[in-house]
Amino acid sequence: MSAERQQKKGNMMKIGMIGLGRMGGNMARRLMKGGHQCVVYDRSQQVVNDLVKEQAIGASSLKDFVSTLELPRVVWLMVPAAVVDRSISDLLPLLEKGDIVIDGGNSYYVDDIRRAKELMPKGIHYIDVGTSGGVWGLERGYCMMIGGEQEVVKYLDPIFATLAPGRGDIARTPGRENIGGTAELGYLHCGANGAGHFVKMVHNGIEYGLMAAYAEGMGILESANIGKAKHEVDAETTPLRYPENYQYDFNLADIAEVWRRGSVIASWLLDLTATALTKDVTLKNFAGRVSDSGEGRWTINAAIDEAVPVPVLTTALYARFYSRGESDYQDKLLSAMRFQFGGHHEKPA
Amino acid sequence: MSAERQQKKGNMMKIGMIGLGRMGGNMARRLMKGGHQCVVYDRSQQVVNDLVKEQAIGASSLKDFVSTLELPRVVWLMVPAAVVDRSISDLLPLLEKGDIVIDGGNSYYVDDIRRAKELMPKGIHYIDVGTSGGVWGLERGYCMMIGGEQEVVKYLDPIFATLAPGRGDIARTPGRENIGGTAELGYLHCGANGAGHFVKMVHNGIEYGLMAAYAEGMGILESANIGKAKHEVDAETTPLRYPENYQYDFNLADIAEVWRRGSVIASWLLDLTATALTKDVTLKNFAGRVSDSGEGRWTINAAIDEAVPVPVLTTALYARFYSRGESDYQDKLLSAMRFQFGGHHEKPA
Amino acid sequence: MSAERQQKKGNMMKIGMIGLGRMGGNMARRLMKGGHQCVVYDRSQQVVNDLVKEQAIGASSLKDFVSTLELPRVVWLMVPAAVVDRSISDLLPLLEKGDIVIDGGNSYYVDDIRRAKELMPKGIHYIDVGTSGGVWGLERGYCMMIGGEQEVVKYLDPIFATLAPGRGDIARTPGRENIGGTAELGYLHCGANGAGHFVKMVHNGIEYGLMAAYAEGMGILESANIGKAKHEVDAETTPLRYPENYQYDFNLADIAEVWRRGSVIASWLLDLTATALTKDVTLKNFAGRVSDSGEGRWTINAAIDEAVPVPVLTTALYARFYSRGESDYQDKLLSAMRFQFGGHHEKPA
Amino acid sequence: MSAERQQKKGNMMKIGMIGLGRMGGNMARRLMKGGHQCVVYDRSQQVVNDLVKEQAIGASSLKDFVSTLELPRVVWLMVPAAVVDRSISDLLPLLEKGDIVIDGGNSYYVDDIRRAKELMPKGIHYIDVGTSGGVWGLERGYCMMIGGEQEVVKYLDPIFATLAPGRGDIARTPGRENIGGTAELGYLHCGANGAGHFVKMVHNGIEYGLMAAYAEGMGILESANIGKAKHEVDAETTPLRYPENYQYDFNLADIAEVWRRGSVIASWLLDLTATALTKDVTLKNFAGRVSDSGEGRWTINAAIDEAVPVPVLTTALYARFYSRGESDYQDKLLSAMRFQFGGHHEKPA
Repeated sequence: MSAERQQKKGNMMKIGMIGLGRMGGNMARRLMKGGHQCVVYDRSQQVVNDLVKEQAIGASSLKDFVSTLELPRVVWLMVPAAVVDRSISDLLPLLEKGDIVIDGGNSYYVDDIRRAKELMPKGIHYIDVGTSGGVWGLERGYCMMIGGEQEVVKYLDPIFATLAPGRGDIARTPGRENIGGTAELGYLHCGANGAGHFVKMVHNGIEYGLMAAYAEGMGILESANIGKAKHEVDAETTPLRYPENYQYDFNLADIAEVWRRGSVIASWLLDLTATALTKDVTLKNFAGRVSDSGEGRWTINAAIDEAVPVPVLTTALYARFYSRGESDYQDKLLSAMRFQFGGHHEKPA
Repeated sequence: MSAERQQKKGNMMKIGMIGLGRMGGNMARRLMKGGHQCVVYDRSQQVVNDLVKEQAIGASSLKDFVSTLELPRVVWLMVPAAVVDRSISDLLPLLEKGDIVIDGGNSYYVDDIRRAKELMPKGIHYIDVGTSGGVWGLERGYCMMIGGEQEVVKYLDPIFATLAPGRGDIARTPGRENIGGTAELGYLHCGANGAGHFVKMVHNGIEYGLMAAYAEGMGILESANIGKAKHEVDAETTPLRYPENYQYDFNLADIAEVWRRGSVIASWLLDLTATALTKDVTLKNFAGRVSDSGEGRWTINAAIDEAVPVPVLTTALYARFYSRGESDYQDKLLSAMRFQFGGHHEKPA
Repeated sequence: MSAERQQKKGNMMKIGMIGLGRMGGNMARRLMKGGHQCVVYDRSQQVVNDLVKEQAIGASSLKDFVSTLELPRVVWLMVPAAVVDRSISDLLPLLEKGDIVIDGGNSYYVDDIRRAKELMPKGIHYIDVGTSGGVWGLERGYCMMIGGEQEVVKYLDPIFATLAPGRGDIARTPGRENIGGTAELGYLHCGANGAGHFVKMVHNGIEYGLMAAYAEGMGILESANIGKAKHEVDAETTPLRYPENYQYDFNLADIAEVWRRGSVIASWLLDLTATALTKDVTLKNFAGRVSDSGEGRWTINAAIDEAVPVPVLTTALYARFYSRGESDYQDKLLSAMRFQFGGHHEKPA
Repeated sequence: MSAERQQKKGNMMKIGMIGLGRMGGNMARRLMKGGHQCVVYDRSQQVVNDLVKEQAIGASSLKDFVSTLELPRVVWLMVPAAVVDRSISDLLPLLEKGDIVIDGGNSYYVDDIRRAKELMPKGIHYIDVGTSGGVWGLERGYCMMIGGEQEVVKYLDPIFATLAPGRGDIARTPGRENIGGTAELGYLHCGANGAGHFVKMVHNGIEYGLMAAYAEGMGILESANIGKAKHEVDAETTPLRYPENYQYDFNLADIAEVWRRGSVIASWLLDLTATALTKDVTLKNFAGRVSDSGEGRWTINAAIDEAVPVPVLTTALYARFYSRGESDYQDKLLSAMRFQFGGHHEKPA
């Protein structure tokens, strides 16, 4: 346990966790490892029982869950964004003035603003936490972006400090020596309600852009042997002007690996790329239908509201739409236009 | 025949046409209709014979072709870009000082510059003509963008005047009353060698952008009923926030039609779109694999050399690449990364 | 007057127009020319008086305006989108069951859906009309995209028929001979409430894309002489590899003109481009700060909700943001990163 | 010194370095620290003298430089791309069969292919090395991507091993345990001539994309307080629909910092971003004119030749063009079109 977390040890808390999936379960585990008490609840009694074996206090119902917590109650929701509102309305009759509800999932920040406003008259505090770290968080810690009232965030500090990675081995940013704050520990109070999910939303928007940058680059390398292929000569095919310049059979796994070592583009996403390519450079187990789960879209919406140009983040999102065949009608229309003006027939695949 | 072309009638020419495909054959027809004599040659004797029935002078060999022309010979090449160099080198031993070779196809303008330089020492003139009009040119006339020596272009004026649409019904651009020149007639000497194909290249680059703009817009309209569909609720699917706002079943053929009438986006490409959608709004005879034939790519290369940002023209080109599955490897890599950091499994189609 | 409008002449209507700016004033004029009676109102009494001189019935107050109309009243709002809601709430106490309110401005279609729902219990009908045609509409007619209840739209047909361009000289789309409907006349009932502004929104989104395609292409042509410039040789400047390929001084006004004549990219926007370039090819009276007024943004939002990739429409919108300096902070950050990893100093302009 | 480099120590080499700028000088230093002998040459005698003080063998002329090396000579060029050809032709008369020329700068890989072909008849070997690491390489080591003949690359291994970072603290990629090779050490023989610079080119293309992704995201965060601003209500300004959602004053330095800690988007570029923002979050010392130095452009060219869609890398490049005002003419044209169709006047800044 790191020095700074050691320091907080006197301040152990009791926290309730609702939603024990990929993220929620591991967060409860990390909290308990850090000395906190966790009351856990999930629609599936099985996952509750599993965590009980690891020292969690299991709850068999929401009522049971709430009554096991102490005032002011701290309830951490780790459920799909689409379920948060229902979870809150189920909880609401059971909660009391001063209780704290934390949404640690992937909510749209606009919902945070609304929810905080709705809960305020009842004296219930709402905190939004954007959480990054995925399946690696249990071990590495979770990077957290937090929105809500200053005093409430401060009150919850021991929880955030435990969930976060802490300083670890990561070198200090030059100039931060006298700045202080928690950012260096991996969590940050970003601002008022919604601020946490706003920053997380943009984080994910950036993530889309980064991923696409690597993917596009790898795509170029993968096709660098195109000069070896026979090309048809017809009016529907652009001839490759200099086939002698595209004769490379690159080892993409090795290239991802070498870039991890001292290059400007080293990153954690590159580490994962290297892992994936080392496992199977053909990626044959993937069909290439890339999902998107909301944050990328909301990021673009925010940028457009602000009139900030974000072509990289946007075309990265669109690449996912294309990968799922969402341009099908437009593509047909383009072929139809070409047929109309030039009598061009589509070339078969 | 329009007034201005009438005027030129005294100046009828004899011209040789090599390549009698979709474009070349019709251009010969339009020239003959305009009173010029056409000597025609093609690899296929059949298409030569067809044009002979329409008053053309057929040639059975290149030698025959050249000897039938008069000095200075005017040879118009209307062959695939990939064949132009070979055609010229076949012709070269048969030509004489002062002869004129015109490339009316879709050559890369850089090749024009090189060819003109190669032919100059032999006293042979090279003219590049970018030709737009597609299968409609026979009837509507061809829009021509011309590069090469001033005097040579002037000498060929009767040919260009006949091939071009002339003023027709198209309203005069305000302010052109005292400007003169041939642009109003549908052909233009754009500059030195390569200038014609440079301008045609950019023309096609713009064409890609325009086509994609319509196609994207129609794509949005086509999916405007998405709120009626059942959507899965899972972490891999972005929920549609307001399904009530996407309940429209639009009649795309009618919409294309109404836009032709007084709207800001009326255009010839929209006319063709309306035709295609009127024929079959489902576009089911098209697979949506959209070809590109070089000019769009060269346009981007030129823009990048000039450091001019052209995201619209570029993403329009990329839409065609996507439509042909050229992002396959990148898409798989994106899914592989998502699996690595979040344990996300691809959703089947 | 066209044949089809003649036919409707028996069916002249009395209509109230609120908002007599660039669009509303001319629409009233076109309606009166077509034989309808217009009651007009505007915050500025001056513009009311001007139209009274042209046979309009002037109103000095909303109350006066409403009482001058006949049941069921037809009120056409032609005011800025931001003012529509206030206008409606001012009108509401004065209207009666069966009255019709038409929003002909640039409202967000989502507002139409809401307003129609709000007005329905009071028995007041709401119709949304997306209107294209700009300052040219008085003469050319207005292209109208209409949303709302079927019977109400039908009732208003004489008004739409008069405002629309009618068939005019525009050639019939092949295949429409037996289709019928009003699309050929330049107006279309697109669907339920909001459908008109939805289609108009996409229309404007396409417009952004088309405009950008021409602008980008012209940008490439304008810089085609870059090979003549002296280029600095330093690590911060990409050398131009083949300056000999960029020696063209193109006449952009002539090029726009020639493209109007028989080319694939002929359009009304190209006509306007030719006009602008003929007037002053240097465009020195413009600073290049390009506004956007909402529809382009909403189009992207809709596309993203539908998961339809629209990179052309989006990057066209972003080009406007860039033109207004909205990327300032990001640009500085890019320079800051370059300084950090490579010690690169910014090159002055 | 790392274990693997220790092992190579017996195999110390004598190497000549031409070009002692930001990169070349430090590379010589790192080589000497690793036990190699360096003969150094530069146009500036001063920088030669500086390195002589650090144990380098200085050369006063190219002739002197070449004669001080041993057969087969190893000459590493670290000069601007525009100067490489001249440097080689100056060297050529002095070199002998079997000598090795290494271009470690930022050459276009197509030039590598040509140069290797030109040098081959003379028995001189050409090796291209793409080098990443910037001003940090002296301390962190250089990531090297190498192209050329297998045996020659193998012969130079001690040099690459010393310049590279080696394994260091960076965790092994799971699955690489039994793979071997040098990629884990930070250098890689990527393939035949040009392969090194091809991979480096794509590396830089990716770098542009990554940088832009962070910059765009930070741009969104920086404008997240836009709801506090007064907005004009006019037809040229899109109203901000929900100002209450844009009330955040984010601390960008803290946000960059927190993302370094456990988030999915942690990277070395983010580390540098955090450093820059910690120093001055206003970035006021930068004007935001972002240079590009060729590799980003070549990357797009390669992608287009291969028909691989790379919208993220491309729009990242275009963002730099925009930042330098390269869209000026297009922007003016857009405003001119808007004036033509709608009478819109530009809004001043």
